[in-house]
Amino acid sequence: MERTEISSLGEFGLIHHLTKNIELKNVSSIVGVGDDAAVIDHFGKQTVVTTDLLIEGVHFDLIYTPLKHLGYKSVVVNLSDVYAMNAIPTQITVSIGFSNRFSLEALDEFYEGVYAACEAYGVDLVGGDTSSSQKGFIISVTAIGEAEPDKLVKRSTAKPGDLLCCSGDLGGAYIGLLFLEREKKVFLESPQALPDLEGEKYVIGRLLRPEARKDIIEFFEEKQILPTAMMDISDGLSSEILHICKQSNLGCVLYEEKIPIAEDTRNAAYKFEIDPTACALSGGEDYELLFTLHPSEYEKLTLNEQISPIGYMTEPELGAHIFTKGGARHKLTAQGWNAFNR
Amino acid sequence: MERTEISSLGEFGLIHHLTKNIELKNVSSIVGVGDDAAVIDHFGKQTVVTTDLLIEGVHFDLIYTPLKHLGYKSVVVNLSDVYAMNAIPTQITVSIGFSNRFSLEALDEFYEGVYAACEAYGVDLVGGDTSSSQKGFIISVTAIGEAEPDKLVKRSTAKPGDLLCCSGDLGGAYIGLLFLEREKKVFLESPQALPDLEGEKYVIGRLLRPEARKDIIEFFEEKQILPTAMMDISDGLSSEILHICKQSNLGCVLYEEKIPIAEDTRNAAYKFEIDPTACALSGGEDYELLFTLHPSEYEKLTLNEQISPIGYMTEPELGAHIFTKGGARHKLTAQGWNAFNR
Repeated sequence: MERTEISSLGEFGLIHHLTKNIELKNVSSIVGVGDDAAVIDHFGKQTVVTTDLLIEGVHFDLIYTPLKHLGYKSVVVNLSDVYAMNAIPTQITVSIGFSNRFSLEALDEFYEGVYAACEAYGVDLVGGDTSSSQKGFIISVTAIGEAEPDKLVKRSTAKPGDLLCCSGDLGGAYIGLLFLEREKKVFLESPQALPDLEGEKYVIGRLLRPEARKDIIEFFEEKQILPTAMMDISDGLSSEILHICKQSNLGCVLYEEKIPIAEDTRNAAYKFEIDPTACALSGGEDYELLFTLHPSEYEKLTLNEQISPIGYMTEPELGAHIFTKGGARHKLTAQGWNAFNR
Repeated sequence: MERTEISSLGEFGLIHHLTKNIELKNVSSIVGVGDDAAVIDHFGKQTVVTTDLLIEGVHFDLIYTPLKHLGYKSVVVNLSDVYAMNAIPTQITVSIGFSNRFSLEALDEFYEGVYAACEAYGVDLVGGDTSSSQKGFIISVTAIGEAEPDKLVKRSTAKPGDLLCCSGDLGGAYIGLLFLEREKKVFLESPQALPDLEGEKYVIGRLLRPEARKDIIEFFEEKQILPTAMMDISDGLSSEILHICKQSNLGCVLYEEKIPIAEDTRNAAYKFEIDPTACALSGGEDYELLFTLHPSEYEKLTLNEQISPIGYMTEPELGAHIFTKGGARHKLTAQGWNAFNR
């Protein structure tokens, strides 16, 4: 495979190479890459900003993460935060730091993923920074979006009696991680062994190539649904539910049997002898949406199979609890499996 | 000195600790830290966004960089980019990655500098990310600002005959770096030696605690001056002038004798037997503003001692040149001293 040293281009040559094909598509993107700063005009709407720092060895392992997937995911996890405000992402900036172990071809692969995400979600890359690093690959993405002021949804505005809902299915990304970590160990011990990922395509895809729930936000818009509170599920369902409880000053009831878990995730969890519910509660990296709704909206939800009502909000004095399939009641904790395994 | 392990707080405890005293001061800061994303309303103005990634061992050396200064500078270098668009910074996000060699007290020092910069420049910290890193300290700052659409100044809009000007004085930060690198070497060879930085306070301050030229942007506003092109000087004067030439498709004439260099910088340069002009042309990290003006604005400039006319823009066919004090003409190159030392 060809290897072009990045040093052969210089900093400005590299930036030009990585950004030369950008065509700004959003009317809000007034000035893109190439000046001291980008310029955005959301024309009377409010601007939403979120940022994430991703560090090799902490957030991702390049042994089993293709760079293209990494570029795609780095963008998606930020867009997920914009959607979680009920806003529409419009621009991103991407900064990367990389050691000399990375070739131009490697960076191209990463940016292929970045641009694929831009295309899929209709956002423009308008800025960033490139730098060398002493060790490893470092990614910082900032996502910018827009929303009508009265459409923004925070975490702190749920009300007692509201339905608690989530999108998609949960726990898959965590099981995907377990599989890849297991196969990494096997590979490091005997590099000639072929990875045994047969049948685990779904959970591995959940980890390596997550999507942000643009479709759910579009469904809300179409059906004129305004959640009372919302956030994305990046750290596991129970931790996120507790954020909404704390920030809205409420309690909640969660039903284990209502938590959506894909059949593939369930089967994979059993192979690891793990409770699939524990994966959903504490696994993380699912990038689904968690939201609360006034109960009068319940009917509208039945139109969308991608939305599951999983419980309801209560007065704060009642605390946050999960009812298990067996009918037992447990206090919900940030590490959901603790409650289960006690 | 006290040392609190960051692991004793947990991620959310740390974020709470670092952000608990924030009071949002800008009316444009609608939602700050604590939700999926920050929300900003620039009320009909355009939004300006810029971002920088700073990596230990590449952009800064903690042997001689106090963490408080580092926090201050990390913000300032981004604000400088916002001012360089003739815009007013309003919000920042700050993400950090740190290894376990950093204590809570160390992070507090860093954030003391971040908040000092927020205070000095009237911006709100509205978001960010905290993460562990396998090695070293990593900083990613995004700065957001606002401007009336017809006030924004790009790099690409200079015209032939425009005056070429810069703010403040140049070359100091580079000499400051040379001093600190020299004393670091001495220290590493004999740790009991006291640093000999006597009399170099000015140039060291230029490196470790730069300021962004808010005052110049305010002067423009007050005197109703609108530069025809502008950028900040972070990579050395000659490299930046060539950016304006290239992006405006022009040539230029620069006069060596007009380049503003502080007496302290000049004296320090002579100690290192370096040409002070070479430091200004190629030194970097000065964070002054470089801009072009219609010649009819010349009179207004004489009111501000912090602004130096250093040349003028020409038709592109004439190329970019510097006239030395001796009257010789050299082609301007990105590494300005090459032309000089040939």
